[in-house]
Amino acid sequence: MVEDQKFYLGVDGGGTGCRACLCDADGVPLSFAKAGSANIMSSLDVARDSILQCCSEAVEQIGLPAEKLSQIPVYMGLAGAEYEALNTKLKQRLPFENIIVETDARISLEGAVGSGDGAAAIIGTGSIYQYRYNGVEKTTGGWGFMVGDLSGGAWLGRELLQETLLVYDGIHAGSPLTQAVLDQFGNNPQKIVEFAQGASPASFGTFAPMVFDFADKGDSFGVRLVHKAVANIEETLDRILPDATSPFCMIGGLGAIYAQRLGDDYKKHLIAAKGDALSGAVSLAIQSFNGRIL
Amino acid sequence: MVEDQKFYLGVDGGGTGCRACLCDADGVPLSFAKAGSANIMSSLDVARDSILQCCSEAVEQIGLPAEKLSQIPVYMGLAGAEYEALNTKLKQRLPFENIIVETDARISLEGAVGSGDGAAAIIGTGSIYQYRYNGVEKTTGGWGFMVGDLSGGAWLGRELLQETLLVYDGIHAGSPLTQAVLDQFGNNPQKIVEFAQGASPASFGTFAPMVFDFADKGDSFGVRLVHKAVANIEETLDRILPDATSPFCMIGGLGAIYAQRLGDDYKKHLIAAKGDALSGAVSLAIQSFNGRIL
Repeated sequence: MVEDQKFYLGVDGGGTGCRACLCDADGVPLSFAKAGSANIMSSLDVARDSILQCCSEAVEQIGLPAEKLSQIPVYMGLAGAEYEALNTKLKQRLPFENIIVETDARISLEGAVGSGDGAAAIIGTGSIYQYRYNGVEKTTGGWGFMVGDLSGGAWLGRELLQETLLVYDGIHAGSPLTQAVLDQFGNNPQKIVEFAQGASPASFGTFAPMVFDFADKGDSFGVRLVHKAVANIEETLDRILPDATSPFCMIGGLGAIYAQRLGDDYKKHLIAAKGDALSGAVSLAIQSFNGRIL
Repeated sequence: MVEDQKFYLGVDGGGTGCRACLCDADGVPLSFAKAGSANIMSSLDVARDSILQCCSEAVEQIGLPAEKLSQIPVYMGLAGAEYEALNTKLKQRLPFENIIVETDARISLEGAVGSGDGAAAIIGTGSIYQYRYNGVEKTTGGWGFMVGDLSGGAWLGRELLQETLLVYDGIHAGSPLTQAVLDQFGNNPQKIVEFAQGASPASFGTFAPMVFDFADKGDSFGVRLVHKAVANIEETLDRILPDATSPFCMIGGLGAIYAQRLGDDYKKHLIAAKGDALSGAVSLAIQSFNGRIL
């Protein structure tokens, strides 16, 4: 019976891991599976393997033969998919007959606001804003923490480590937060430098929870840094929202944490996300391959 | 005749290149030689080869037999020498019987102010402050541009690229400077991100001259960035100088450029450097191995 049905796959892939959802023609989820990293910027082969692994597993779970996999249309949202060359290469290395590879921001927006207009500030290790007005979808930010991703976890961590070294040098007055960081590195600034040289954005991002915890306790630097981060977000919202009362979602690992800390004018227009990025990928799979809006 | 004399080597080594000066017992230079990178953080073997090459060449230039090299006492100042493990390894891999490896900041201060008290702001690709008061020498900064090196060329470049992307996204108003950067990357922000991902501090630093040029022409962002950079330097000088009228030097690739842009209160106490880092290495070689202060 199951073999006569139509199936669709939605995939949400990022640096940390990759998830697939197999659904029916109505977008009803039939199975879920997880695999490792699918960051095409880091390694195309690792990403391909992760994607294949979780898609295969989702297909197996409902008892479909493995050779059916390539015939199932798949819509995936991946970090780095905006880089055309990588995007094209990935599609060539995957066996799917029908495949669409879009950014993770795109499936996140779809999951959060559905197929209508709306905006999502997606703030985790990085930061990116995805929004759709009058049916036109756009992206702001998401350039990576080296030259962008303001207010993301990696950015917060780097700002904190920089401040800690300024405190160590006696240029700035310290706070319990910078002292806690110094303690963590055995009061040895060289250890901070060594960490920073080899650190991935995710490693820098591990300091983000400390920043919020200390800020909530009134730590002078923590408060200042969170204030600066919130100001960046508000400045971007001012720019991307069509007017000051437009609703928006705050999603990503730090989305909810920042949401509580926005100014009241912003909080008033904050709405809850309808679903997550994977549900967005599923919706887009149905829309794209079955011509239906869920 | 030359074989009866005593000789000393001073070496100044950094990421860009390495220089050696052979001198007599009075510190009078007899020969100079150059070689490639001596950044021990990047590659200990490359650094060792560069150091050996320029030292050997300096020795050859005055007609000394190559086997004499290892008997000549050598004082070197190297970027990264504050990392004890690297410092020790380097010394083990060099043939010198008498060798001292100190930081490039240390020989720079010696060159700039001699053996007495004084301070030097050393600002090139990175930024570091070296100073000596009551005979006690200290260092501030120099932690690398990822978490430090404020106002250095790499920091300036990264700030400029970040601003350019904020302008591209319409978050900030542009200026001729950010437009020039966008033009340079074919108005393609992904090219900026790709550049930033693989860029060395020196590569980021290539944007520093643009920042100063545009700032001098009144470019709104250029002026703001240089102002921020100068404020960082003045803040650090306030901290390291024993009082507001203490003299100091501004050295390094951007030292003179910043010197002109400091506030008048600082400019009044700015003094010219006596010599460069290599002359400092030579002085320290004579002091350390011949017990004489030049």
